[in-house]
Amino acid sequence: MDLTKITNPSFLKNLNQQQLEALASEIRSFLIEKCSVTGGHIGPNLGVVELTIALHKTFNSPKDKFLWDVGHQAYVHKILTGRAGEFDTLRQFKGLCGFPKRVESEHDEWETGHSSTSLSAAMGMAAARDIKKDKNYVIPIIGDGALTGGMALEALNHIGHEKTNMIVILNDNEMSIAPNVGALHNVLGRLRTAKEYSKAKEELESLMNKIPVVGGKLAQTAEKVKDSLKYLVVSGVFFEELGFKYLGPIDGHDFDALEKTLDYAKKVKGPVLVHVITKKGKGYKPAEDDTVGTWHGTGPYKMETGAFVKSTTTGPAWSSLIAQSVHKCMETDKRIVAITPAMPVGSKLESIQRDFPERFFDVGIAEQHAATMAAGLATQEMKPFLAIYSTFLQRAYDQVLHDIARPNLNVFIGIDRAGLVGADGETHQGVFDIAFLRHIPNMVLMMPKDENEGQHMVKTALEYNDGPIALRYPRGNGIGVLLDEEMVAIPIGTWEVLREGTDATILTFGTTIAMAFEAAEALEQKGVSVKVVNARFIKPLDTAMLHELMQDNKPMLTIEEAVLQGGFGSAVLEFAADHRYNTLIDRIGIPDEFIEHGNVDELLAEIHVTAEEAVNRLEKLIQLKQQESLRTV
Amino acid sequence: MDLTKITNPSFLKNLNQQQLEALASEIRSFLIEKCSVTGGHIGPNLGVVELTIALHKTFNSPKDKFLWDVGHQAYVHKILTGRAGEFDTLRQFKGLCGFPKRVESEHDEWETGHSSTSLSAAMGMAAARDIKKDKNYVIPIIGDGALTGGMALEALNHIGHEKTNMIVILNDNEMSIAPNVGALHNVLGRLRTAKEYSKAKEELESLMNKIPVVGGKLAQTAEKVKDSLKYLVVSGVFFEELGFKYLGPIDGHDFDALEKTLDYAKKVKGPVLVHVITKKGKGYKPAEDDTVGTWHGTGPYKMETGAFVKSTTTGPAWSSLIAQSVHKCMETDKRIVAITPAMPVGSKLESIQRDFPERFFDVGIAEQHAATMAAGLATQEMKPFLAIYSTFLQRAYDQVLHDIARPNLNVFIGIDRAGLVGADGETHQGVFDIAFLRHIPNMVLMMPKDENEGQHMVKTALEYNDGPIALRYPRGNGIGVLLDEEMVAIPIGTWEVLREGTDATILTFGTTIAMAFEAAEALEQKGVSVKVVNARFIKPLDTAMLHELMQDNKPMLTIEEAVLQGGFGSAVLEFAADHRYNTLIDRIGIPDEFIEHGNVDELLAEIHVTAEEAVNRLEKLIQLKQQESLRTV
Repeated sequence: MDLTKITNPSFLKNLNQQQLEALASEIRSFLIEKCSVTGGHIGPNLGVVELTIALHKTFNSPKDKFLWDVGHQAYVHKILTGRAGEFDTLRQFKGLCGFPKRVESEHDEWETGHSSTSLSAAMGMAAARDIKKDKNYVIPIIGDGALTGGMALEALNHIGHEKTNMIVILNDNEMSIAPNVGALHNVLGRLRTAKEYSKAKEELESLMNKIPVVGGKLAQTAEKVKDSLKYLVVSGVFFEELGFKYLGPIDGHDFDALEKTLDYAKKVKGPVLVHVITKKGKGYKPAEDDTVGTWHGTGPYKMETGAFVKSTTTGPAWSSLIAQSVHKCMETDKRIVAITPAMPVGSKLESIQRDFPERFFDVGIAEQHAATMAAGLATQEMKPFLAIYSTFLQRAYDQVLHDIARPNLNVFIGIDRAGLVGADGETHQGVFDIAFLRHIPNMVLMMPKDENEGQHMVKTALEYNDGPIALRYPRGNGIGVLLDEEMVAIPIGTWEVLREGTDATILTFGTTIAMAFEAAEALEQKGVSVKVVNARFIKPLDTAMLHELMQDNKPMLTIEEAVLQGGFGSAVLEFAADHRYNTLIDRIGIPDEFIEHGNVDELLAEIHVTAEEAVNRLEKLIQLKQQESLRTV
Repeated sequence: MDLTKITNPSFLKNLNQQQLEALASEIRSFLIEKCSVTGGHIGPNLGVVELTIALHKTFNSPKDKFLWDVGHQAYVHKILTGRAGEFDTLRQFKGLCGFPKRVESEHDEWETGHSSTSLSAAMGMAAARDIKKDKNYVIPIIGDGALTGGMALEALNHIGHEKTNMIVILNDNEMSIAPNVGALHNVLGRLRTAKEYSKAKEELESLMNKIPVVGGKLAQTAEKVKDSLKYLVVSGVFFEELGFKYLGPIDGHDFDALEKTLDYAKKVKGPVLVHVITKKGKGYKPAEDDTVGTWHGTGPYKMETGAFVKSTTTGPAWSSLIAQSVHKCMETDKRIVAITPAMPVGSKLESIQRDFPERFFDVGIAEQHAATMAAGLATQEMKPFLAIYSTFLQRAYDQVLHDIARPNLNVFIGIDRAGLVGADGETHQGVFDIAFLRHIPNMVLMMPKDENEGQHMVKTALEYNDGPIALRYPRGNGIGVLLDEEMVAIPIGTWEVLREGTDATILTFGTTIAMAFEAAEALEQKGVSVKVVNARFIKPLDTAMLHELMQDNKPMLTIEEAVLQGGFGSAVLEFAADHRYNTLIDRIGIPDEFIEHGNVDELLAEIHVTAEEAVNRLEKLIQLKQQESLRTV
C-alpha cells in the first residue's frame, strides 16, 4: 500500500494478521530508505514496528493517549497517523520533527525528547480522566533504559500507590542508547530468561495442594507458600511489589501475542505493565548486528550496505578530542574517574571504559545520581570527570548546585553538545547551560576556541583543585588545528586577544569566534578596526581585561550561541554596571524562545546569530558612540 | 554524664547496655531542652537516638563514613562527635548548623539539606575506597520518605548492579516530613507487618524437602520453589531483586538488636540494606503523638507542655494565604488540581486535601514527577497548582523547562519559601529561582507586595491560559493587610508606582519593598525624592513603564532578595542595553556565594541588602549623574 495515503490509524481495525505483517514489512522498507537519506533514530523505530501497529489497532488514538517516552521511536506512529508524506523532511529545518510534537498532530498528546517523562505525564493524564469521569486508556510506552531514570521510578511509586488505571508498555530491547546497566536491567533479564517456566506456576499450585499439612504452624506456613506463589521467579515480582499487574514477557514482533495481551490488559483494573521484548534494528541487518549503539541514531547511510556516509569535516569529533585528552591524563593521574549517564558511545568514552575499567562508571540514564556520585568521589580526593550533554545536565541542576558547588567539591563537568545541536531540535539544544550554571557560586565555566585549546582546558580542569569546573564543547567536529604535544593548563579567568582592533571589540568564545572574525574582516573592508577577544572563561570573567577594555570605552559586542537571558552578555552588562562603566554594549545570542530542529547554520540565520548581524550591530554602536562623543564634546 | 565533655565517639565502645540506655535518655532530655529554646528538627532526632549511638559504637567514624540523608537528623551525631556545647547556638547566625557540615567536623563527610542524595554520594565514596583499595565502611542512613526520591532510586539501581560493598540503613519511621505515600511505602508496610513470620521461612525449607517429587517437570518445579523461597513475604524481595541483601526489620530503639544486626551487616559481601523501624519523636509525648508532621521541625516550644511559643507576627502565614486563595478558586473552577511533593503541611494544603480529595495529590518526595505530572494534567485542559519550595524546585528545573515551558502548558507553580529562609541555612535558601526560571522561554514569574496582592496573583495565575506562570512567596508571615472580598486578576507584565519621586527610582518586589520605602524616606529627609516601583512581574518586565522611566533617565536601583547573577536586576540591565538607554543602574541582591543559616535580618545585614545600603547606592548614583550632566552640558 502507499503509506503516504494513510490519514489515520482506523484502517488497521480490519486488517488480518497477514495484512498486518505485509504492512510491517512495508513500513520497515520505508523507514530504512527514508532514514538512509535524512538520518534519524532508525534502530529504535525498526524495533517497534509491530508494537506500534498493534497499539494503534487495539486502542483508539487520539481518544486513547499514547505517550512515547524519549520520543525518538515515534516514526511508525507518525506514519500511521498520516505523516508518511513528510518523511523526506525528517529532522530538517521547518520539516517533520524527529520527536512527537503537539502542534504536528492530535495524536501526539505528549511531546518529549528527554527520557523517563512518560509515566509522570501519563499519571497526569489519567488523573485528569478520572476527575472528569472520562473513559479512555492512557498508554505510556517506555524503554528499559528510560525506566532507570529517577523520575520514571518516582512515577512508578506514585502510580502503584494510587492504583490508577493505566497500561504501561515496557519496550525492552536490552539496550537503550547503549547497552543498559543497572540492577533493574538484571531484574528484566531474569524475567526474560524465565519464559520457559511460564507454565510452572500453575503446576506448582496443584502441587501445593498435595503438601501434607501436619499441624498448626505448618498449615500456616503452607498458606504463606500459596500467598508467595506470586513471588515466583516467573512473575514480575518487582513490579507487583510496586502495585502493578505484570503481564509478559511477550514477543514484540508477534502480532497475535501482542493483540491478545493488549486486549487482556484493557480489562485489568489498576495499573498494568506489559513487558514486551523487541529487537532494536529488527529487519535491517546492519542495525540488528549492532551491539554498542551505533545504529541508535545515525546520519545518512548507504541503504544496501549500511555504510555510513562520511562527513567532509576535517577536525576530530569534539567528544573524541575531550575524551582522549582525559584518557591521556588518566594514565598518570590516578585520581581521575570518568562517569557517564548512559552515553559511553555518544561521549566517546569507549577507550576509557576499555583501558580503565575500575575508574569508569556508566550509571545508566540517571543524570542526578551521576552528578552526586561524582560529588561523593570528590569528597574522597578523587577527581571525577562527569561527561554529560548540555541538555541532559538540566536534569542534574540541583545536584550540581546543592551537592557539588555548595560544598565546593572538585568535580570536572564535561558539557558535551553545548550550543545548537541541529536535527534533534528544541528538546536537545544545549543553549541553557551558561544561564543555569553562571549564577551558581564557586562554578568555573569555560569553552575553547579550537581543539588545541580544548585539550589544554582538559588539563586546566584536571589540575584545578578549588571547586567545580565545567568545560563546554559543541556537537560535531573541530576545525582541524594541530594539537600541541604537551597539554598545559590555562590560568583561570584569563581571556586572550585574537585580533587587534581600535574602533570596537567583540567578546565571544567557542564556535562563534569564526563569526566574529568574519564580521571583523567585513568591517575592515569598510575601514572599521575591530578587536576580537576569546572570552574563553565565561565564569569567572577576565576582569583585568574587561577593566582595560571598558576604560578604553570602545563599543562592545558579545556573541554567544546560548540564551541571552542571564547569559554571558548579561555577565558583561553586570560587570559594566557594577563598575559604573558607560561602555556601549550590545549582545547577540539566542532569543527568548525554544529553537526548533534544522541545520545549525539555517537556525542561526533564522535567529540572526550571524556575522552579518554582528556587522550591523557594530556599525550602529559605532554610530551611536560618535553621536554621543559629539554631544559630550 | 556531661554531654558537652564528649570529644569523640570512641568512649561508646566500652559502654554496656545499661549505660547506653542511660546515655540515650540523657541525650533525649538534652535535645528536648535545647530545641525548646532554639527550635529545630526535634522529631526526627528523637527517633534516631539509639540508632545513632549504635552506629557510632559499631563503626569507627571518621574512617567509616556516615552519610545522613536530608541531614536534619544529625543532632545526636553532632553530640557524639563533640559538638554538644554548641547547641545553644543551633541554627543561629554563626552558630551550629542544623545539618551536617564539612567545615564543622571531620565526622561530617557528607553535607546535605535536600533529600535523597546519600546513596549516590555513598556510591561515590565506596567507589573511591575500592579504587584506592582502602578498607572502610560506607553507611548512608536514609529515611523511608527520602527513598522515594528519584535519585535515591537511581542510586539503588546502580549500587545493586555494581554489587558495591555498602551498608544502607533504612530508617523507617512511617513518616518523613508528612505521612508517607507511594507504593514503596506499602512495600515497607508489608515488611513491617511480616515480622511474625520471620521463622516461617526456615520451617518452610524443611517442609519443601518433604514434597513428593513425582517426575521430571515437577522436580524442576520443586527446584524452582526452593529458589523462590527468597521471595517469601518475609524477605525484602523488592530490595533483593535490586541486588541488596535485606536485613530486618529490626526495632530501632533496641540496642541489642541494633548491634547484632549491624555486626552481621559488616560481614556481608556486596550491598546490604538494614531495615530499622524507629518512632519519630520517641520519648517526648507531644512529638510522639504527632500524626501529621507538626513536630518534624519546630520553632521554640514550652518544654513541659509542648505548646508552641506563638510568634508575634500579625499577618497570616504566606503558605496559608496562597493555599486558601487556591482553595477558594477550586470551589468554582473544576479544572484546578493541587499537587505537592510531600509538603501538605509545609505548604498548608490540608484544607484542600480535605475538601477536594479527588483533586489533590501528595506524590511524596518526588519533585520531578510532581512537575511532569502537572504537565500531563495540563495537556488535558486541567489547571494544576504545583506548590513547591523554591529550593526544592531546583530538583525539577529540567521538568519545568522541558515538560512544562517548552510545550507551553498551563501550569501554575506556587514557589513557596522564596528568598532567604533563615535557620535552615544554605541548603534551603530560596534565592536561585529567579535566575533559573527567568531564562526559560514562555515563563511568567511574579511576586506580590502583600497578602492582598498575593490573593489577586493567585487569581491571575488561575485565569492565565497562555502557558506556565509562577508565583513566588516568602517564608513566614504577611504584613497584615486587609484582603479584598473579591479576587481580581492583575494584567500580566504590569508594575505599579507605589511612591512618587523625581530624583531616582527603586525597582523592587515582595519583601524588599519595605526596604525601598525605608530608603526613600531616609533620602526624603536629605531632600532627595525617590520613586518606588512595585516590579511585581519579574518576567515579563513592564516594558512600557521601563521605557518611560529610562527616557526620564533618572538613576535607578534594583533590589532583590535573590542572586544578582542573571537575576531581576540583570533583566533591567539587559532591557537598557537592548534599547540603548544609558540610564545609570545599580543593583542590590545576593552576592555570588552561598548564604549560611541565621536570622534573615542578620543575614541581609551581613550581605548588605539593607535600606542603608540602598541609601548609599542611590546617593552615589545621583552624584555620578550630576557629574555626568555637568560634563554633557
